[in-house]
Amino acid sequence: MPVKLAENEYGKSRVRLVKVERHGSRHELQDLSFDIQLSGDFTAAYAEGKNELVLPTDTMKNTVYALARQQPLGEIEEFGERLTGHFLSRNPQVERVRVAISQNSWARIKAGTREHDYAFVRAGEERRTSVVEQARSGQPGPAVRSGIADLAVLKTSRSAFQGFLRDEYTTLEDTPDRLLSTAVTAEWTCAPGVRRYGEMWRAARQTILEVFANHDSRGVQHTLYAIGSAVLERVPEIARIELALPNRHCYRVDLAPFGLDNPNEVFAPADEPYGLIRAVLARS
Amino acid sequence: MPVKLAENEYGKSRVRLVKVERHGSRHELQDLSFDIQLSGDFTAAYAEGKNELVLPTDTMKNTVYALARQQPLGEIEEFGERLTGHFLSRNPQVERVRVAISQNSWARIKAGTREHDYAFVRAGEERRTSVVEQARSGQPGPAVRSGIADLAVLKTSRSAFQGFLRDEYTTLEDTPDRLLSTAVTAEWTCAPGVRRYGEMWRAARQTILEVFANHDSRGVQHTLYAIGSAVLERVPEIARIELALPNRHCYRVDLAPFGLDNPNEVFAPADEPYGLIRAVLARS
Amino acid sequence: MPVKLAENEYGKSRVRLVKVERHGSRHELQDLSFDIQLSGDFTAAYAEGKNELVLPTDTMKNTVYALARQQPLGEIEEFGERLTGHFLSRNPQVERVRVAISQNSWARIKAGTREHDYAFVRAGEERRTSVVEQARSGQPGPAVRSGIADLAVLKTSRSAFQGFLRDEYTTLEDTPDRLLSTAVTAEWTCAPGVRRYGEMWRAARQTILEVFANHDSRGVQHTLYAIGSAVLERVPEIARIELALPNRHCYRVDLAPFGLDNPNEVFAPADEPYGLIRAVLARS
Amino acid sequence: MPVKLAENEYGKSRVRLVKVERHGSRHELQDLSFDIQLSGDFTAAYAEGKNELVLPTDTMKNTVYALARQQPLGEIEEFGERLTGHFLSRNPQVERVRVAISQNSWARIKAGTREHDYAFVRAGEERRTSVVEQARSGQPGPAVRSGIADLAVLKTSRSAFQGFLRDEYTTLEDTPDRLLSTAVTAEWTCAPGVRRYGEMWRAARQTILEVFANHDSRGVQHTLYAIGSAVLERVPEIARIELALPNRHCYRVDLAPFGLDNPNEVFAPADEPYGLIRAVLARS
Repeated sequence: MPVKLAENEYGKSRVRLVKVERHGSRHELQDLSFDIQLSGDFTAAYAEGKNELVLPTDTMKNTVYALARQQPLGEIEEFGERLTGHFLSRNPQVERVRVAISQNSWARIKAGTREHDYAFVRAGEERRTSVVEQARSGQPGPAVRSGIADLAVLKTSRSAFQGFLRDEYTTLEDTPDRLLSTAVTAEWTCAPGVRRYGEMWRAARQTILEVFANHDSRGVQHTLYAIGSAVLERVPEIARIELALPNRHCYRVDLAPFGLDNPNEVFAPADEPYGLIRAVLARS
Repeated sequence: MPVKLAENEYGKSRVRLVKVERHGSRHELQDLSFDIQLSGDFTAAYAEGKNELVLPTDTMKNTVYALARQQPLGEIEEFGERLTGHFLSRNPQVERVRVAISQNSWARIKAGTREHDYAFVRAGEERRTSVVEQARSGQPGPAVRSGIADLAVLKTSRSAFQGFLRDEYTTLEDTPDRLLSTAVTAEWTCAPGVRRYGEMWRAARQTILEVFANHDSRGVQHTLYAIGSAVLERVPEIARIELALPNRHCYRVDLAPFGLDNPNEVFAPADEPYGLIRAVLARS
Repeated sequence: MPVKLAENEYGKSRVRLVKVERHGSRHELQDLSFDIQLSGDFTAAYAEGKNELVLPTDTMKNTVYALARQQPLGEIEEFGERLTGHFLSRNPQVERVRVAISQNSWARIKAGTREHDYAFVRAGEERRTSVVEQARSGQPGPAVRSGIADLAVLKTSRSAFQGFLRDEYTTLEDTPDRLLSTAVTAEWTCAPGVRRYGEMWRAARQTILEVFANHDSRGVQHTLYAIGSAVLERVPEIARIELALPNRHCYRVDLAPFGLDNPNEVFAPADEPYGLIRAVLARS
Repeated sequence: MPVKLAENEYGKSRVRLVKVERHGSRHELQDLSFDIQLSGDFTAAYAEGKNELVLPTDTMKNTVYALARQQPLGEIEEFGERLTGHFLSRNPQVERVRVAISQNSWARIKAGTREHDYAFVRAGEERRTSVVEQARSGQPGPAVRSGIADLAVLKTSRSAFQGFLRDEYTTLEDTPDRLLSTAVTAEWTCAPGVRRYGEMWRAARQTILEVFANHDSRGVQHTLYAIGSAVLERVPEIARIELALPNRHCYRVDLAPFGLDNPNEVFAPADEPYGLIRAVLARS
């Protein structure tokens, strides 16, 4: 039976790297995880088991380590570009390379106001992320996205959800005041030629936090839009931002059976089910 | 600053349902999880916090339970179609609905050869899956995909990886005989009008297992292609199949430092990093 | 300030081993994970950083692999005994060794009734377990426990919970008919000198399944006791059994707001919170 | 066959509570999870399915919420004592109650140096913990333990491991300089009558961080002992401390095959296997 290979990609995932850069007694720490995917004309490997053009995924892992040694990593976006360029320039059989990098957060241990030179404490489960994609033909440079994953935030005031559509299966009641708990995942597309990735990331993160905190939310969609517009406004290099906000419901517990009121004090958080709101905002 | 809402979708995730259908003393069990996503013109909710057109995600959850009560669930693909049809027909503001369903595996408890009527034991972490997508305009009916997730398999013979491309960062050696351990995730697109989803699923699953077992593998790509072609061959209603096979490496332990050989007997499996091979096969 | 080291132990956890034993074309597969802990007089290492008596945890890992090569593994209890004996006989500074082993479940892939010689499919998340503890002084041989972890079962009939204690915070209603979903974890102590570990394990597992299925349950405690007593009855070498049964609640969904009844057909399972019932049964 | 119930306990696990205490516009947030276990004479429930003395685990959950409403929570240790006292005083059939509480970490969102009144960001995966145990007879008051779980730290200097015991299965080499990465879990026993739990916890946490950072480590045991002794020294109410430190190995990558050196710059972290060091320190 005639079968065709309509799409294909392969690579190595969860390649983990800790890189230490030493400036005298002061050490810089980077804790990263890589997913690398190549695509191209690999029909012979699939259809016939001929591996002549297959760069082993083990080699991709080694490449991460070898390139990490050879010069300072720089921002994760920059290291992603080095990797996509490396694989594309050496492998004519490859048409497209995608490298996704996720960076764990560490802060220096403090004693009083003094920051330690080489000792760190994990600073939350949030991660800085980047995806670099480069095709052999097409755009002149790689497409670079930057982002943040799982930035968990919660506010105990200024969040409502009311006036929504009701149908025969609606039991939810209007609430002028609820808890809003989410974990922001954002990914933005940088205009070509951008080079201040770290600064942009810090500005975007701080904007997300401040707008989440100060916005008068009428719903998760409303919050998401406020966050996205503010990031576009404050960081001019960002052309487009995708946001995903799970609604991590905190249910107000009904204490009436026990003769008690509950003026928004006692909540039962639940992991599932959860609302999930996703949107892309762009400059118009 | 002028901002536009370029894309949007929202819904409820991880809605869990256990449905029991009782035929006399014999009970049928379905253990499902749903992700529902709607998209359409929700600009007012995002930009202004006006929720008039926003069907609460809580209502989506209730809808799953209410529809589950009203008639037998049928195959998960059929129940997915009922849900997409329901949301689309009642909500003119919605342009597209996507329902993803994941079904856990349970087997009847056995005593000897007798199967129990109403007691079950969990039968692996593999899940039967389906994604039903329906747009208001466009194709006449919904697009239905069926699949299987995380079907973990391992073979201890007939798997090689050699003759691959080598560069300066390649240290992997040719191996004529290795362990092959993976967890197959597959998703196939059904030709419109198909109605024997369960039968097709069982045929596809059995084909995956048999081809994995009997194939003379020269690499994960080779195995993937063999599996995909065989499914297309044996199940004529399947038009296209996407397969993702992580390579869950089992490293042969070097026992030479202890004066011992290791004729492919002692392996150290590792969860990360892992190879990941994805491809789509279609009839040509 | 005078400080004493009141207790100490150290070792290697999550040492993973896949062992293949080949009998002609038929291969046997064992997929194991080890936690090893040694205790003894290691004060110098703690208080002064003197490591002369510290066997590296890396060596413990190597030991698992080297011993696994040297003879057939046998039952996990037997291999646990080899390991505790090894560490104790070579390390006079060690007073006690504990080895915990967890075995993943794999079944041969079947085509029709024929079982494959060297290809396997994962058979559930349940694991066979063993803990072997051996002290330098004290009992003549090691203490051996065997068990099963996370054997997930569910029944849709013959489970009630009523007539319980009520206080001012009780809102739960009596139910003569509910779903009972749990994941049995059991650990039994073998009388010294036992040597048919595998047979005992299979008998205990089958007893757990059958009693869970056929018992007329008035509560999780009642089910636990029925299971434990039956295991003690059917497997004479088992002197004592500890059982832990989480109550994985499946809540009957209230469909009355939608004008629907729910005769125990539609349930919402929830992972948390969960009841947890633990008891030890022994021969009296 | 005569069987006896040698031990038993039951209760509710993963009861999650978010409590908001409002002081004008400034809100305090507590995000907690509870495990409650009762033991006593429940033989009738086990052996005969008679539930007259069984307080439902659902009631335990309700009790957490009702008591949380009735007064400020206070420190988690204090709320644990209220819960154990509640269950013991109302339930004569209960002999012993254990309440374990785990508190998630949230920090106020900052803009410049200003802390937000009611918006929070998750501050790491570390958790403050407490276990309160109270028996009907025995000691006058409850036994209270406080602790910290999963405080992840890493240092890039001042950590060695050398001069250890070598046997035939040892391949590890002496290293005068390695990365030390761990996640500290500590639990301390408070002298009876203690009432400044929060202050003690903050002092213990800061001590753990500073000693980890500044200590000249010759091994994980050495670090553990230094941390434990310092906590005992600086916090006089702590009578005894248990510490568990997993060694989250970061392997120096061998770059020699690529013609590169690796002066402790490029590491591959691995989750498994991992060393695990546990000890109890007490005042002598």
